[in-house]
Amino acid sequence: MAFDVPPGYRALKEADISAYLSGIPAVSERLGGKSADWKVREVGDGNLNFIFIIEGPAGGVVLKQALPYLRLVGESWPLPLRRAFFEYQALTTEAKVAPRHVPKVYHFDEILALNVMAYLHPHIILRKGLIRGIVYPKLADHMATFMAETLFSTSDLGQPAAAKKKQMATFCDNIELCRITEDLVFTDPWRVADGNRWTSPQLDATAVAVRTDGPWKRAAQEFKLKFLGEAQALIHGDLHSGSIMVTEDDTRAIDPEFAFYGPIGYDVGALIGNLYLAYLSQSGHEAKPGERDGYRDWILQTIEAVWTLFDQRFRALWNKAHAGDTFMPALFATGPEQAAFTFAQDAYMRRLFVDSLGFGGCKMTRRILGLAHVEDMESIADPDRRAACETRALRLARTMMVEGASFADIQAVNDAARVVQHEAAKVSA
Amino acid sequence: MAFDVPPGYRALKEADISAYLSGIPAVSERLGGKSADWKVREVGDGNLNFIFIIEGPAGGVVLKQALPYLRLVGESWPLPLRRAFFEYQALTTEAKVAPRHVPKVYHFDEILALNVMAYLHPHIILRKGLIRGIVYPKLADHMATFMAETLFSTSDLGQPAAAKKKQMATFCDNIELCRITEDLVFTDPWRVADGNRWTSPQLDATAVAVRTDGPWKRAAQEFKLKFLGEAQALIHGDLHSGSIMVTEDDTRAIDPEFAFYGPIGYDVGALIGNLYLAYLSQSGHEAKPGERDGYRDWILQTIEAVWTLFDQRFRALWNKAHAGDTFMPALFATGPEQAAFTFAQDAYMRRLFVDSLGFGGCKMTRRILGLAHVEDMESIADPDRRAACETRALRLARTMMVEGASFADIQAVNDAARVVQHEAAKVSA
Repeated sequence: MAFDVPPGYRALKEADISAYLSGIPAVSERLGGKSADWKVREVGDGNLNFIFIIEGPAGGVVLKQALPYLRLVGESWPLPLRRAFFEYQALTTEAKVAPRHVPKVYHFDEILALNVMAYLHPHIILRKGLIRGIVYPKLADHMATFMAETLFSTSDLGQPAAAKKKQMATFCDNIELCRITEDLVFTDPWRVADGNRWTSPQLDATAVAVRTDGPWKRAAQEFKLKFLGEAQALIHGDLHSGSIMVTEDDTRAIDPEFAFYGPIGYDVGALIGNLYLAYLSQSGHEAKPGERDGYRDWILQTIEAVWTLFDQRFRALWNKAHAGDTFMPALFATGPEQAAFTFAQDAYMRRLFVDSLGFGGCKMTRRILGLAHVEDMESIADPDRRAACETRALRLARTMMVEGASFADIQAVNDAARVVQHEAAKVSA
Repeated sequence: MAFDVPPGYRALKEADISAYLSGIPAVSERLGGKSADWKVREVGDGNLNFIFIIEGPAGGVVLKQALPYLRLVGESWPLPLRRAFFEYQALTTEAKVAPRHVPKVYHFDEILALNVMAYLHPHIILRKGLIRGIVYPKLADHMATFMAETLFSTSDLGQPAAAKKKQMATFCDNIELCRITEDLVFTDPWRVADGNRWTSPQLDATAVAVRTDGPWKRAAQEFKLKFLGEAQALIHGDLHSGSIMVTEDDTRAIDPEFAFYGPIGYDVGALIGNLYLAYLSQSGHEAKPGERDGYRDWILQTIEAVWTLFDQRFRALWNKAHAGDTFMPALFATGPEQAAFTFAQDAYMRRLFVDSLGFGGCKMTRRILGLAHVEDMESIADPDRRAACETRALRLARTMMVEGASFADIQAVNDAARVVQHEAAKVSA
């Protein structure tokens, strides 16, 4: 391999795994029995890593090892192994406040760039559940809790500046993965770029129109500037529906290797934007029109609940668990002072709301015109039907990015989504 | 000393200086002659450091050594020596784009925590010139250039994300000096705090009123949150009129040991806010009323020119010297796209303007109700006259912080300053 790898690094093979894990007591204990009893299988659905599932008599673990290149593209796109370290740092930081919504980490190996984590079973990737039309009654509640807890606790409202700056210095080094987001999410969909693709020829004219849409490009670059410079909290950095594993009762956010100190709205927007993609792709999965009306309603209810509960819980933490160096409660003790505090809190949450819509719109756009697409759309076999769904999604994405500040609340965004869903989706938007 | 100092650190005495400097060729050369010819004197007007001026036959240098405590308060307030490193990093970064407006650094000694720099002569501290009523015709031009060049080039508009993140990781460690700003500028003036003082009894009621003023405290905490989380550019961090050395023809920003990646408006606001303090203190320096009317006008013209030229030059750099990862010119090539770009630029500069007013207001307030005061006001011997000037300054500061968004432009802020100047300054504002 021609990559810059530390001495001692090697890509583990299926045959190496049991011997490797038997030397780690925390993992052996979790698996139970003897290493000869452990079943190892590689599940290669990551773009950046090798993933092995190991099951023993007592339980299972996942071993996730970073590769020195982006697997999707191949060896031409090298990626630092150190992302396993950032994933470890992020998972353990998240686990402090939201242990029920992340996989437990049993072992981190810096040299081999791997983490050994709880095997989430019988969980599936949320995106696959959304395509199948499965209702997750606790999803909004759980994800609102995960986001409020992790984002508040690492913000300047939730921790002292000294602690934040120390952790931020570490994550400043997560340059290359941030760079992927900077290019793929905020820039490439709006320019001619290697790897861009779309449903063709149906969206050819749309792709050209997007690349010459001044206000839309302005919005994309404004959100990119926020992504680059607004160090609000330690964000997950890739919180789409493919990074969430679910059962009816349990919800876990995985794969935070893109984590860094960035804008809170980027996480909230990733989730909301991907739920709107799920919503607008449903008509591509219907055997007959209207079949999924009920499921569409559930997705919109979920989006409404995600924002509403996130807003409530973030405010509740701010009111009760204040540990930051700003807005100290002692400054706002009397009635009129509390009114001023609430006013500031309203303004702060409003900014997060508009940010979340904008970032969500960026994430939706890039999944239709950029390099990496999503199964919600890709699994619609008929390109005309797919293009119709994608055209609607682009229309909503543009509104969320360019006119986000015009929405009074999340219900208004859902109303806009309903309007888009009912519109004829002309191929040239 | 009970402080945490690295092995090898010692506070230099006047008698040590020549021997120390003679071992540094770049400095010996600058001074000329033999070390026996060099004249060394300590000039102790810093709060944080020992400053020596050394003059030789060919020229002079300044040696600035950090002390492990805050000199103003004494040994009870330890301060890390590493601030000499941050000053060195900031001065050399600034020198890349604005060499004419910073002192040249000849030598940095990490162990002794000292920098040897050009001796600026016959410069005086701008604040002293403003008190004496001296006109500096090039001040606005020079400071607008300094700020536009240094702030643009270290922003995400002026450098790639990878370069910014590397430098930001270094400056994340400048925790303690940032902490001083966080406490003294954004919090203490609005609460009962050790070290707070004000012209008493004249401002006693005002100090109480400020501490219970909900909207004002809300604004202070909102600007503190921006200071903590908005990593826009490498800012000087202490750019008041005591950190600028001037002659009629030359202007140099010194003492950037508070530098870190923070909001651009904090630097611009420090300068503007301190110019408004100078403006509103002039009536305390008049032998007869109206004597300084012309000088007052010049200060307001200077403030207008500072903002206007800063705005022009920052935009010009953005248009011409683009090197960042956002708003790439290729995205905005056609006429309609350029219009969208200009719209984004207008919005960006407008936010900087409102930020600058708010941060300026914070800086003005803290100089009247907080720990560290300014000579502009302190040198007004009559406490009634001083209190009148300070009351007016607090009134303008509150407007700049709470209602900054209501000002159309810098002329409107100057109009508000003129109104305040002409109002009777009742002691209870």
